[in-house]
Amino acid sequence: MSYQAINFAQKFALFSEQWQPKVVAEMNDYQFKVVKLQGDFIWHDHQDTDETFIVLEGELRIDFRDGAVTIGAGEMFVVPKGLEHKPYAEQETKVMIIEPRGVKNTGHEDGERTADNDVWI
Amino acid sequence: MSYQAINFAQKFALFSEQWQPKVVAEMNDYQFKVVKLQGDFIWHDHQDTDETFIVLEGELRIDFRDGAVTIGAGEMFVVPKGLEHKPYAEQETKVMIIEPRGVKNTGHEDGERTADNDVWI
Repeated sequence: MSYQAINFAQKFALFSEQWQPKVVAEMNDYQFKVVKLQGDFIWHDHQDTDETFIVLEGELRIDFRDGAVTIGAGEMFVVPKGLEHKPYAEQETKVMIIEPRGVKNTGHEDGERTADNDVWI
Repeated sequence: MSYQAINFAQKFALFSEQWQPKVVAEMNDYQFKVVKLQGDFIWHDHQDTDETFIVLEGELRIDFRDGAVTIGAGEMFVVPKGLEHKPYAEQETKVMIIEPRGVKNTGHEDGERTADNDVWI
């Protein structure tokens, strides 16, 4: 049997569009997604689940209504279920998102930032 | 409110022992654990869950009964539920493991490699 590791740099080299998470792996009913972020996202929350951000390259700021967290390369943050947040990246930032299968990137908000779900790369 | 990212290098600097996973974050009922690995682990499996390995530094080989996968820095691999596997690292390797809370590192095997569970750092 042939087993193959998933290489993040190789996956990021396959696409250029921002704000469009691509699934690279699944663990039980959770998905690992890579995404390129730059600029402002929208305020939203996920009522049913926490959401994990791991920054692989660049710097991601996540604003909350009462503060913010800055996540650099080699750092992670788990946004608690139900907490309103708004990601922002000054420069293009490469991020891994981990969350249950089926979670919409904009929560229950819809708009131009809403991405197709379950797109594999 | 003060929000703080989790820095992997800072966490790894806090301990030296190998094969003792330390929890750094939780997402719903899943845990993110950092661990230093070197040498041979034991053959085991996890009957109830997949298990994710992300290599942050070094190189991890996971042997299966019918093959192996080599995971370098910036790579990941999800070991499917129920699949017998044996991790091995020639040099000390820094790894993040993601799996449900309560999973024992040696599966249903017990031995000197069995680590305390739910140890936070």
